[in-house]
Amino acid sequence: MPYKAIPEIGEFGLIKRIAALAEPTLEAVPELLQGIGDDCAIYQPDGALLQLSTTDLLADQIHFDLLTTPLKHLGSKAISVNVSDICAMNGVARYALIALAVPSSFSVEMIEELYRGMSLAAEHYGIAIAGGDTSASRSGLFISVTMIGSVSPQQLTKRSGAKPGEVICVTGRLGGATAGLKLLMREKEIMLEHVQNNEPYTKNVMADLEEFRDVIQCQLLPQARPDMVSLFHSRQIRPTAMIDISDGLSGDLQHLCQESKVGALIHESRIPIHPNARHIADELQDDALTWALTGGEEYQLLFTLPKEEYLALADHPDISLIGETTDAEAGIHLMDIYGMKIDLQSVRGFDHFRS
Amino acid sequence: MPYKAIPEIGEFGLIKRIAALAEPTLEAVPELLQGIGDDCAIYQPDGALLQLSTTDLLADQIHFDLLTTPLKHLGSKAISVNVSDICAMNGVARYALIALAVPSSFSVEMIEELYRGMSLAAEHYGIAIAGGDTSASRSGLFISVTMIGSVSPQQLTKRSGAKPGEVICVTGRLGGATAGLKLLMREKEIMLEHVQNNEPYTKNVMADLEEFRDVIQCQLLPQARPDMVSLFHSRQIRPTAMIDISDGLSGDLQHLCQESKVGALIHESRIPIHPNARHIADELQDDALTWALTGGEEYQLLFTLPKEEYLALADHPDISLIGETTDAEAGIHLMDIYGMKIDLQSVRGFDHFRS
Repeated sequence: MPYKAIPEIGEFGLIKRIAALAEPTLEAVPELLQGIGDDCAIYQPDGALLQLSTTDLLADQIHFDLLTTPLKHLGSKAISVNVSDICAMNGVARYALIALAVPSSFSVEMIEELYRGMSLAAEHYGIAIAGGDTSASRSGLFISVTMIGSVSPQQLTKRSGAKPGEVICVTGRLGGATAGLKLLMREKEIMLEHVQNNEPYTKNVMADLEEFRDVIQCQLLPQARPDMVSLFHSRQIRPTAMIDISDGLSGDLQHLCQESKVGALIHESRIPIHPNARHIADELQDDALTWALTGGEEYQLLFTLPKEEYLALADHPDISLIGETTDAEAGIHLMDIYGMKIDLQSVRGFDHFRS
Repeated sequence: MPYKAIPEIGEFGLIKRIAALAEPTLEAVPELLQGIGDDCAIYQPDGALLQLSTTDLLADQIHFDLLTTPLKHLGSKAISVNVSDICAMNGVARYALIALAVPSSFSVEMIEELYRGMSLAAEHYGIAIAGGDTSASRSGLFISVTMIGSVSPQQLTKRSGAKPGEVICVTGRLGGATAGLKLLMREKEIMLEHVQNNEPYTKNVMADLEEFRDVIQCQLLPQARPDMVSLFHSRQIRPTAMIDISDGLSGDLQHLCQESKVGALIHESRIPIHPNARHIADELQDDALTWALTGGEEYQLLFTLPKEEYLALADHPDISLIGETTDAEAGIHLMDIYGMKIDLQSVRGFDHFRS
């Protein structure tokens, strides 16, 4: 058998090859309206409502580090990242199935703590934990959550509906998740150094992270945006295309544009950067704009709307208009504060297999 | 935090504690008719059909050993074990979501081979592969499959519907999966010995397993029983209770009896043992009945029926009547060929955390 290493084609190259293998299976199931290629699969049983489903797996040492992540937070995050995919289709999450692989070093209480976080998040979002599978693991914790939601055909929003000349909006403030991660990694290094040198890692050594609580929360306890979906529904707004920016603004804008066959021009000056992310980037001599563009794990929504419909949302403090869609040939660019156009295809998003 | 090791309470003790934490989330979702506690969750969106969902995770070195398992077979098995849970509710599987965590030693071609097996199985069962998530893993391959199916309320079969005085039936021949596993483990040991001693592991050393092809297939390429579900539907039979015996006949009979609040008496002489399992058990000085009772990974269906309805199935060569349900107080017993009653609660099923 030939051997091509996964990093050679990357996460998205791999998805393409997997999708090609899944393709022949689609024909047998006409009720499946959308397979691989959006935030969720779309399935229409016999009623009017469409069923949405999505699965996201969190792997030890890849997506989280138990040295810096409380189990309860991790459980909550596993729910939120899946709710976020349902939100990205303008749908409402209803129930989750949880598959866990648990190393033998885990106690019953640790699993309960993880589930407590899931259960609290589920109550927060109004979803049920409906079933699952719990297995042993020879190494590391793996959390695989599948979320089922529903949406009416009139409200369904895919990645593919944007047209040139529409506005591009994003919810929330960006860069906080990366800022939080950088702080936690720095603190972890300090802790490990102390352990290696047999020095006590006590309160006086620990950084006081209280003032950065909000960005650490962005990383450890991100919130999906069903409130935005409710807002769209109540104001009778239907975005033409939507995606959650779990792979970073730059990468996910490109996914949306590819599926919609449009280009985009977004403006640096309009990107809502988390104030504490700027502060921390300065302290670490890093760049908050890069974090906002390429940092993953921002469970905010990126969407497009006809200009005239944007007026119904313009008053909302948590929605920023960051640019407009263009013809596909114009490409996907960021206009920086000096008026320079930067090709976003040169700004790489997050790829779990490459980083 | 107190520390209780998982083996102290076992897989089923753990499920109970997890179910208690999931319980408070159920209230918010009245369309969810069944949460944790059966082979599938049951969800009723707005149509007449019920939606069934289930998730099963296969972990490296726990559920499979890549030294003895071809990737294509593994992919197919991951689909079959989930289809089996849908069959156990008398439902029809429709589509699957696949979450993979893949070690960096894997090539693109290896993942494709795994997916090729999934895709072939999906085509065999008439289901679509609708989406998924592929992530890196620091160690070992993890395959988490979620399967969605549907069933009419008139055909839905839960674990809980059996009444005393009904017949207990099982499909297929049992013990083959364990026999296949024992052969593969023996062959693996021989191979590892040769490798350790720097001796070539060549064709002349390898056992000729051709005559045991069928039991090895039971282990590596098990088939779910949607053909039985079709048979029930076409003959307008609805089992009163059903479960798939993935944890072994003894353990899963106990699960069915507990949920239905009945007892059971099954007869050793009526248990359909795979002929090659007997043959191999003799060769290995082991006991094929124990394999048939406690060996997991038999994706056959165990179900109950009123006696008069059994007549409609009595002609079928692949359905065996193995006993009858009793009052719960009578317990759950096996009558052996000498007429001795053995309490099946003393015969432990398979527990991934304890074995």
